[in-house]
Amino acid sequence: MKWMWNPKFEAMDREELEQIQLERLQATLHHAYRHVPFYRELFDRVGLGPGDILSLQDLREVPFTTKEDLLQGFPYSFFAVPLTKVARIHTSSGTTGKPVVVGYTKRDLQYWAHLNARILMAGGLGERDVLQISFNYGLFTGGFGFHAGAELLGATVIPASAMSITRQINIMMNFKATALVSLPSHALRIGHRLQEMGIDPRGLSLKVGFFGAEPWSEATRKQIEDHLLIKALDNYGLAEVGGPGVSYECEYRQGLHISEDHFYPEIIDPATGEVLDPGQEGELVLTTLTKEAFPVLRFRTGDLTSLNNEPCECGRTLVRMARVKGRVDDMLIIRGINLFPSQIEDVLLSFQVGPNYLIRLYREEGLDQVEVQVESILTGREEKDALAKRIERDLADKLGLEMKVVLVAPGSIEASSGKQQVVVDEREI
Amino acid sequence: MKWMWNPKFEAMDREELEQIQLERLQATLHHAYRHVPFYRELFDRVGLGPGDILSLQDLREVPFTTKEDLLQGFPYSFFAVPLTKVARIHTSSGTTGKPVVVGYTKRDLQYWAHLNARILMAGGLGERDVLQISFNYGLFTGGFGFHAGAELLGATVIPASAMSITRQINIMMNFKATALVSLPSHALRIGHRLQEMGIDPRGLSLKVGFFGAEPWSEATRKQIEDHLLIKALDNYGLAEVGGPGVSYECEYRQGLHISEDHFYPEIIDPATGEVLDPGQEGELVLTTLTKEAFPVLRFRTGDLTSLNNEPCECGRTLVRMARVKGRVDDMLIIRGINLFPSQIEDVLLSFQVGPNYLIRLYREEGLDQVEVQVESILTGREEKDALAKRIERDLADKLGLEMKVVLVAPGSIEASSGKQQVVVDEREI
Repeated sequence: MKWMWNPKFEAMDREELEQIQLERLQATLHHAYRHVPFYRELFDRVGLGPGDILSLQDLREVPFTTKEDLLQGFPYSFFAVPLTKVARIHTSSGTTGKPVVVGYTKRDLQYWAHLNARILMAGGLGERDVLQISFNYGLFTGGFGFHAGAELLGATVIPASAMSITRQINIMMNFKATALVSLPSHALRIGHRLQEMGIDPRGLSLKVGFFGAEPWSEATRKQIEDHLLIKALDNYGLAEVGGPGVSYECEYRQGLHISEDHFYPEIIDPATGEVLDPGQEGELVLTTLTKEAFPVLRFRTGDLTSLNNEPCECGRTLVRMARVKGRVDDMLIIRGINLFPSQIEDVLLSFQVGPNYLIRLYREEGLDQVEVQVESILTGREEKDALAKRIERDLADKLGLEMKVVLVAPGSIEASSGKQQVVVDEREI
Repeated sequence: MKWMWNPKFEAMDREELEQIQLERLQATLHHAYRHVPFYRELFDRVGLGPGDILSLQDLREVPFTTKEDLLQGFPYSFFAVPLTKVARIHTSSGTTGKPVVVGYTKRDLQYWAHLNARILMAGGLGERDVLQISFNYGLFTGGFGFHAGAELLGATVIPASAMSITRQINIMMNFKATALVSLPSHALRIGHRLQEMGIDPRGLSLKVGFFGAEPWSEATRKQIEDHLLIKALDNYGLAEVGGPGVSYECEYRQGLHISEDHFYPEIIDPATGEVLDPGQEGELVLTTLTKEAFPVLRFRTGDLTSLNNEPCECGRTLVRMARVKGRVDDMLIIRGINLFPSQIEDVLLSFQVGPNYLIRLYREEGLDQVEVQVESILTGREEKDALAKRIERDLADKLGLEMKVVLVAPGSIEASSGKQQVVVDEREI
């Protein structure tokens, strides 16, 4: 039970856990059916009542919910409680258009704090620690999720959002931070900057870091650990089911433990929707078991992973999911920002370049970079440079990401038949 | 007692309030003396023991604490509890150099939430309201202070930090915000943008706004109220004594009620240090009465105001301070950022321009603007433009503020004898 925040639930006997899951699931189904028109129609459409789900297996009869479904409800149609009972609003991190708007009751916020305390405790944190949270605070769930967990845990919290890498480093050194919460790419940048500044990481008080909100590889983990001399831990969550707190690594780092007392996970074949067995890779589907303001049923996360039911050395009985390295759809996650190639395409078309283009993703000093190659009939060097600059500015304005634009001659980019391969990912995630 | 969060304290009999102030003051003096070396030395230097303060009047014997004193303690020397008891770190908002680092225990955070709930309740807010907080969250105290107050109050909180004016407006409209917390200049920008976008403010759900963290005039208040069709309320606080929550306007807006059960205010003659009578204008000095982690004794705020002990129509017995419109020192507050002319001077000198310069502050569409005029021997137009651009970039990098730089011919700026008048403030605050 060392480093376990809620040992009662994290190391619960599986039979008992499944009983609790079923009770919470049934309560969630009734709650969603009664208060969210979308779910009532969903059930009615397939001739099912919430009382028909008598086992966890029965959940398979409920149709999936997609991100598009949630977006249709903008802003408040998926709220299962009146707005007066909603204590907090957050949103998903889409770059353009309307985001998914999520709500939390006071109880939701309390549970959320506990879920994030689990993540931090699994990394060895306690009330003697000083936690620097470099995530943004705001509608993004990352900052507030970890903040609440750390306050519950009794650690000293440094809300170090919205500042430059150099200021982050100054704070880390002067305030004697013992732990860091950030994007993995952000931690890497801190590591590289330390090196540039000639600062010996042994002089820092840092011992552990909690990284998430974008995919990252074991190679990145090693680089972060080498540069910052810390233990780097992965965690997973997404705004639609409440933000960080869905799953987290323990000290053994053999997959991420899912807080199954709050989330019921399934892995499906993304093509057929069929539920797959443990060990098989497929799309993660999540059902919330305790959410009051924003329950979601069988939400298709779009993330590819697999489940592992084997007992873990740490003593937790919670199922582990493999680290997420891929997506079902073509969504790209670049420096924590979600982006679809079609959004880049829209901008290119507005400049009357294309239709052939290529998005190249690569890493420079651990930081994600995007190069957009697009065909153009322009030949003059100055003309081309000026247009590329204008497109770059527009991409940055509209999508919130700096990208490099290269105009190439017509015919340079191969147009394949069928679905064009527009993304070349050289990031080695 | 309408719209009063803590009527017991906000409308307390003055004799009873002063008894509580004295008890809390004595506890604070002992606490600071025992745990903060600076205060022990301060007392010892004047041959005073914390037990010698037997009345509120006696506090006058304690020497002042200045911002420079607090800066000497960077980062943690003024903490009166061990770091393990510190739940949160915040800092003052200086643009460069080391900030004042302040700490909060769990109890400090609870009191802080109550102080901010008072502000919101005085503006008529309750649990049916949706509060859009546009302040930054992070080391700055503004966002977190109001956030905690709103959660305690039971309102729905939209943490809308770190986004463009247009997104703020989208959120305000779509999420049906009924109240806004922001810088007054930010509210003005929102108002102007609404007009540009042709959006009728009658279509908004907004009814009240809480503005602070920079000085603003009655003219600005009127503009905000006309553009947003809301009641605009002022509030006051500063990081060194804990952030927002020191004082706030009630519906009658005849000065800001100071939460005297947590802060003991004095007005002094900034030149002599003599305590002035109610009604006389001078520098506000604050002593915290309940702070555990970061007690401050007779802190010179640098802000010019006066106190009014007359009963207020709202029923509160708390003393009122006049709205702050001036400073004792030459600190400028521009769009919520604190800045001294000497910081601009440092940048100018690094480019070998000057030493004669002039800082002109003015308003454009309600937004603070800074123009820096500086003498240079350059004559070529292109050369001058290029240098001005480089200086502008460096000012923005180092001070975090966009300013316009104009190079003028040597001798254009009058160098007076004695202290040069380097700031021309045309903002009509």
